Amino acid sequence: MALISTASARFAPEVYAARLEHAAAAAAARDLDALLITPSSDYAYLLGYRPPELERLTCLVLSASGAPALVLPRLEEPLARHEVGRLADRLEIVTWDETDDPFQLVSRRLPGALRVGLQDRMWARFALRLGALLDPAELVEAGPTMSALRRIKEAAEVHRLRTVAAAADAAMTAITAERFSGRTEAELSRRINELLLAAGHHSADFAIVGSGPNSASPHHAPGDRMVEKGDAVVLDIGGTRDGYCSDTTRTAFVGEPPADFVALYEVLRQAQAAACAAVAPGVPAREIDRTARQIIEEAGYGEHFFHRTGHGIGMETHEEPYIVESNGEPLRAGDAFSVEPGIYLVGQWGARIEDIVVCTDDGGERLNQTSTELFIVA
Amino acid sequence: MALISTASARFAPEVYAARLEHAAAAAAARDLDALLITPSSDYAYLLGYRPPELERLTCLVLSASGAPALVLPRLEEPLARHEVGRLADRLEIVTWDETDDPFQLVSRRLPGALRVGLQDRMWARFALRLGALLDPAELVEAGPTMSALRRIKEAAEVHRLRTVAAAADAAMTAITAERFSGRTEAELSRRINELLLAAGHHSADFAIVGSGPNSASPHHAPGDRMVEKGDAVVLDIGGTRDGYCSDTTRTAFVGEPPADFVALYEVLRQAQAAACAAVAPGVPAREIDRTARQIIEEAGYGEHFFHRTGHGIGMETHEEPYIVESNGEPLRAGDAFSVEPGIYLVGQWGARIEDIVVCTDDGGERLNQTSTELFIVA
Repeated sequence: MALISTASARFAPEVYAARLEHAAAAAAARDLDALLITPSSDYAYLLGYRPPELERLTCLVLSASGAPALVLPRLEEPLARHEVGRLADRLEIVTWDETDDPFQLVSRRLPGALRVGLQDRMWARFALRLGALLDPAELVEAGPTMSALRRIKEAAEVHRLRTVAAAADAAMTAITAERFSGRTEAELSRRINELLLAAGHHSADFAIVGSGPNSASPHHAPGDRMVEKGDAVVLDIGGTRDGYCSDTTRTAFVGEPPADFVALYEVLRQAQAAACAAVAPGVPAREIDRTARQIIEEAGYGEHFFHRTGHGIGMETHEEPYIVESNGEPLRAGDAFSVEPGIYLVGQWGARIEDIVVCTDDGGERLNQTSTELFIVA
Repeated sequence: MALISTASARFAPEVYAARLEHAAAAAAARDLDALLITPSSDYAYLLGYRPPELERLTCLVLSASGAPALVLPRLEEPLARHEVGRLADRLEIVTWDETDDPFQLVSRRLPGALRVGLQDRMWARFALRLGALLDPAELVEAGPTMSALRRIKEAAEVHRLRTVAAAADAAMTAITAERFSGRTEAELSRRINELLLAAGHHSADFAIVGSGPNSASPHHAPGDRMVEKGDAVVLDIGGTRDGYCSDTTRTAFVGEPPADFVALYEVLRQAQAAACAAVAPGVPAREIDRTARQIIEEAGYGEHFFHRTGHGIGMETHEEPYIVESNGEPLRAGDAFSVEPGIYLVGQWGARIEDIVVCTDDGGERLNQTSTELFIVA
């Protein structure tokens, strides 16, 4: 859970007070009587700290009309009061003891509720228990309400995304200067975790190292395979700093790459660059996906690019807006997302290039600055 | 997500084949038509690998009658086939593309289902979408079914818990040999993370460092507070190795502790030792809690011990059985859980001692071996 206080990273209490008000108003606008927000990035967005996700219910009850209440186990009250600080004046803090029923504490605050929004990642166990007590209220996803608030990044948030992207770039630069052959994927992955932390991440969240045939597995789990000369190696790495996430991918080749891999890679590089260049306010998200896909299809690799082009990023590694055919929403200034096409010849090799891009009034700003050329490593 | 392949830690395919059969039978015994298991420790318990928990639905559909099916996004098919290996023969693997509806793929496999169990931590977003498609099926918690299977640890699992506990002990021994004063809680926490990894954990999951008044906050998030002479410091640390978790707490004091803190600590130490000594098959879980609580209450600290005495541990840091007043279930050989009373004078100082104990036919076996005496640090 990488539980380090975000105290130094917290914005002023007024920021959270405003966010709580906006979320309540957004819930009301959607005819929701309340939002129920368990520990998550939504919780951290609204309250400025992120308690551990545990079996004891902690839940922000954000009524569309009344004052927000924070229901939490008594042993976490000191943490909450320490972390929310002055914001506590605007919250009712309701603690429960180990033998109390916290679900009753939540449901009793919502008499007559007809529609209640549940935080997207609330545990099903909690959702089912709350649903039984809130019956006949309709339970709906709080996701659309919260992501509408979180999607457009303020300047201070873009600053954090830029800072954490630079830290990921530093880790990528460092790892691609090291020897790959003779080390296992798992060793390289652990080394990347060290480098992510050394570069300023507060937590190292993932370090995919897919080598040889595993480079064609987009979400490969690094294992005991020894990297050797002639391998393509996909490195997809990221972490969190001050509550905001990094995520960047580069592809390396151990030794001299054969001509057919170079050809594949150059197609990918053009596709990724074109997709980044297509970013601008008003452009539908799907157009970014289509831009990359068209170049890859025209080069004959269409069936080998079998995932969307990207995902939004902020306090979560994956959030709105998704850069996918099914998303016709126009991009807006302040959207931040990955542009990460890949080409995978399953069983043989693959490649992916990923940058985080922020949509600005002047077009896309790439936050990742490392070269997108194929890295040749020893 | 600390996504490292557990390939080297995986049991033989027959183990998972048997677990899948047991889970299906347990579901049938509870009148469930199916269990829906998203990425989680339950998923890893049944399939031997743990994919990332992402917004793209991955779901094991474990029908009580038919063959299990694994519904997953196409980009994760290479990961799944690589990780499940020979087990794939017993699974139907159903992939979906970015523009498909994976929820339909799940619900279509369960025509006429009346009762369906959802994995405890399935995201509410998924639970709500599946619930709408499975209507009028009743959705229930899969938790009791899965925890009944997972609660009693086999010898190979106890071996892993013993190994990972030793790694946590090594980290605790190392950190308590270092200087505390002049370092912040966050610095010490990061150092513990390094030590957890150096001692053999594959992921460092938490490192609570609560100093001075923060030692009275059981789930304190380490922050910028500088540790100084005269501070009590609670260290609650843990990680994962080969899929199994460690969790141990020790309390340190910077410099010579005053008599009233020593007195408080000795009460706690007696309570923790007595609770460990009370572990035996047939003893209700609540008796372990009562044993610790009675000693603390009789010494006049009752109101300052405001959490349960412990929680089960295995592939999750917190799982069944919970050592709490409300749990009258008798302990059984193979139960593994923490014994961790604490005394907290909020605003002043606190202390906690935590060992993992396995219930055996001969009584409790403490897996943590470091001294429970107060550590005096510089």
